[in-house]
Amino acid sequence: MKRTKKADIYTESLELHRKHKGKIEVYSKVPVKNRKDLSLAYTPGVAEVCREIHRNKDLAYKYTLKANTIAIVTDGSRVLSLGNIGGYAAIPVMEGKALLFKKLAGIDAFPLCFERYHLEFADDIRNIAPVFGGIALEDIAAPRCFELEESLQDIGIPVMHDDQHGTAVVVLAALINACKVTNKKFEDLNIVVSGAGAAGYAITRMLKCIGYKPGLCSSVNDIIVCDRNGIIHRRRDGLYANKYKFIISEETNKTGRTGSLADALREADVCIGVSVPGIITPSMIRSMNKDPIIFALAHPTPEILPGDALQAGAAIVGTGRNDYPNQINYALAFPGIFRGALDARATRISDEMKVAAAHALADFVKRPRHDRILPAILNRRVVSAVAEAVRNAAVESGCARDIG
Amino acid sequence: MKRTKKADIYTESLELHRKHKGKIEVYSKVPVKNRKDLSLAYTPGVAEVCREIHRNKDLAYKYTLKANTIAIVTDGSRVLSLGNIGGYAAIPVMEGKALLFKKLAGIDAFPLCFERYHLEFADDIRNIAPVFGGIALEDIAAPRCFELEESLQDIGIPVMHDDQHGTAVVVLAALINACKVTNKKFEDLNIVVSGAGAAGYAITRMLKCIGYKPGLCSSVNDIIVCDRNGIIHRRRDGLYANKYKFIISEETNKTGRTGSLADALREADVCIGVSVPGIITPSMIRSMNKDPIIFALAHPTPEILPGDALQAGAAIVGTGRNDYPNQINYALAFPGIFRGALDARATRISDEMKVAAAHALADFVKRPRHDRILPAILNRRVVSAVAEAVRNAAVESGCARDIG
Repeated sequence: MKRTKKADIYTESLELHRKHKGKIEVYSKVPVKNRKDLSLAYTPGVAEVCREIHRNKDLAYKYTLKANTIAIVTDGSRVLSLGNIGGYAAIPVMEGKALLFKKLAGIDAFPLCFERYHLEFADDIRNIAPVFGGIALEDIAAPRCFELEESLQDIGIPVMHDDQHGTAVVVLAALINACKVTNKKFEDLNIVVSGAGAAGYAITRMLKCIGYKPGLCSSVNDIIVCDRNGIIHRRRDGLYANKYKFIISEETNKTGRTGSLADALREADVCIGVSVPGIITPSMIRSMNKDPIIFALAHPTPEILPGDALQAGAAIVGTGRNDYPNQINYALAFPGIFRGALDARATRISDEMKVAAAHALADFVKRPRHDRILPAILNRRVVSAVAEAVRNAAVESGCARDIG
Repeated sequence: MKRTKKADIYTESLELHRKHKGKIEVYSKVPVKNRKDLSLAYTPGVAEVCREIHRNKDLAYKYTLKANTIAIVTDGSRVLSLGNIGGYAAIPVMEGKALLFKKLAGIDAFPLCFERYHLEFADDIRNIAPVFGGIALEDIAAPRCFELEESLQDIGIPVMHDDQHGTAVVVLAALINACKVTNKKFEDLNIVVSGAGAAGYAITRMLKCIGYKPGLCSSVNDIIVCDRNGIIHRRRDGLYANKYKFIISEETNKTGRTGSLADALREADVCIGVSVPGIITPSMIRSMNKDPIIFALAHPTPEILPGDALQAGAAIVGTGRNDYPNQINYALAFPGIFRGALDARATRISDEMKVAAAHALADFVKRPRHDRILPAILNRRVVSAVAEAVRNAAVESGCARDIG
């Protein structure tokens, strides 16, 4: 039955895409009815606008689409669960993402799909910056996504890889409220992260304050990160081949544990899965500390089904799915983060802005319960709350652009 | 009075741009009202569309924005009469061009402004090709625009520099009808082109069939091209520094004339100015053959004012302006050319497609008169006629893409 339903959605989706030839179009915001309209929107009137911006290029924020437009950039190297399908096959996903940006945050997002990754990818992105107020990197495989994002932090507009930071922001928000419900102290938490890809690294970095300013956010007591070879620890072979796993080995697992995910989870307070379906078992949960918090985010099939986790003693379970309570979905974060960044004409997205987004999300839930630690996704009020917090944090952290 | 009016337009244009923060936005073509809509436009339904395109990347034309979307690409090196003002200051012009594409041809055109020219510009453009069905190069200085366009002819989608070929197509159309009115034979014409920039080179190439297939279009008897140093001839110094002036010297001026524009114009039938205001004098026109045809396209002030040219004996005068008869404006050509190319899912814009566009434009005027050799611009019926001719020519010249 479920199979049929999915097949139906696939057929219907193909038909929708065929009928409309894609999902987005370019639309005029100004009237273009007669010659007078054209003389203002185009020549000769436009020449004066050009001269103003030539005088001060930041005035592009005042007079052009840059004020409200971002690029959605991908090389198609890790699209949904489809893997490295390349830039052409990624277009429908990027168009879908553009719809979300528009619907939730009123942002004009245009997809730019590169056929495949290449050595000058960062330069390519740098060069197309003028018309955009921000760049969302999407569906780019790790570890390349880390390097790419790092290398673009100086280009004068925000560049953020949603799969990393959108997810990390929502996980932090979820964890803040999960602590309230379970009376755990954030600073005392021992956390296990299953998965060392884009999301796993960003979550670890945020919860352990790696790279964050001291005092900006709390740091949990310890994190142990597992990849497909088990626990990442300092003496593991091959760490130098991947800078980011090396950083993880240096900054986590302070007691030097070794072994499997099951070994890691013994006496842990929190398990965050950003890995593969079914990898967490009930007996692993039973080996954790009292009232364990389980975020099983593999999609669409989580690391453990919520029912099984609760039966094994989990106090709170979150997944990426909307058919269970506590949906932990980066769509809660990225629209508001980019909205706030555009409103501030931000030069980049600072750590302060991400932390502010997480707190705004957590605070949005007035009375967290075990089955309601986060707001519902696709809610414009949530986006507004996050955007306001992010805009303020941009100003406070010196990342807002003043164009007078 | 005129001065005040221009100042008013400038003020009003600035206000329009400020109020709307630019002129274009990204708009949803599909409903996004509820979860069902999202499951079709985004995950999970979209995965099936990705798989289809991964199987055959040409299906991007069937299922994505590629079918109707072009990029407007510039480095801002020659914007209007403002010169090399760079990519930021060029944004308002590119947005204005996008409005024209949409209004006249229903094409979704998105501006990509590179901050300045750089050595990898062609590669950058190549890399962003997947989401676009065509690329319009705009406001790029000569001779770089020639090299750039040439080097991109193999990328699988049409790449056309409007300032060159849009203008050349309209000039050819105007000349076909001017011959009808004056009873001159196209093949007998001796033509002088004043200006060896982007438009001058493209016009020369088209009228003299340089690079065109023999028999595809008629070639005039001879052309003499003048730049700021006078007549281009084979023995002129410094020709090797500019490949395109070298080609001009080889392919034009078969009697080996030397001297100034005035020398060139003696006993010529046609003068086409794509140069600077006021450079053509009444006495030059009086030195031409009977019933001279004058296209004075410098903008906004032409090489000679129509009244002066007519008084000196010109049979037909065209300018770039809409306040005189015979407006020769590339806006007559580029919307229909790209519309036809997109409708054919063209791999490139062949010479056949450009020639077909010129004939469609000329044929649109049923009874040419000395003050009506071209249709009016901003007329969607003209765009449709050009588009249909271009699409047919794409099929006939093997440039249409069949996606089954």
